[in-house]
Amino acid sequence: MNRVEIRYCTQCRWLLRAAWMAQELLSTFEQELDELVLQPDTGGIFEVRANGELVWSRKQQGRFPEITELKQLVHDYIAPERDLGHADRKPAPKS
Amino acid sequence: MNRVEIRYCTQCRWLLRAAWMAQELLSTFEQELDELVLQPDTGGIFEVRANGELVWSRKQQGRFPEITELKQLVHDYIAPERDLGHADRKPAPKS
Repeated sequence: MNRVEIRYCTQCRWLLRAAWMAQELLSTFEQELDELVLQPDTGGIFEVRANGELVWSRKQQGRFPEITELKQLVHDYIAPERDLGHADRKPAPKS
Repeated sequence: MNRVEIRYCTQCRWLLRAAWMAQELLSTFEQELDELVLQPDTGGIFEVRANGELVWSRKQQGRFPEITELKQLVHDYIAPERDLGHADRKPAPKS
C-alpha cells in the first residue's frame, strides 16, 4: 500500500499549500497512490512522508519543496520504475 | 484519533470535488481532525467515512452531498459536542 502524508501547520495557514500539493501528487500518482493523507498540526511544521519515510521537512531544508522536486522524491519511494514524463522531469542535479 | 476518508473515482474525474470537500472539512474541523485521507479509486465510487463509519455513499444516496450536509454528518461523528455555528464553524478558542 502506498501512502503519502502531508503534515502542515494550521496556524501558519498552510492548508491551501498542502492541499494543492496533495492534488498535484494525486494527479501524478493516481495509479500508484492508495492514500494521500492531510494532517493538520501546529508549530510551523511542514513535513511530507512516503510510506513512513520522511521525504521533506521544511525545518530541515529551510524551505518548501518545488512541486517537481517533491514529485521526484515521492516517485522514488512509490513508483521508482515509472518515467515521470516531460512535464515533471527531475530538476538539474544540485552540486 | 479522528480520521475522515474520501474515496473517489479517478475515471470520473472527481479529484477536484474530493479535494475541495477535503479542504472544507479540514478548515471546519482543524482542531478535531487528525487525518483527512484522499483515496483514489475507480468504478464510480464516491464515499466518505468518519472513523471507519460510512457517512456518505453516492451509490446509496444517488447524489453528492451538499457541503453543509456533509459537515453536519462528519460533525456528528468527530465533534458532536461542538456547535457548528452560523458559518459552519465556531472560532477556535485561543489558549
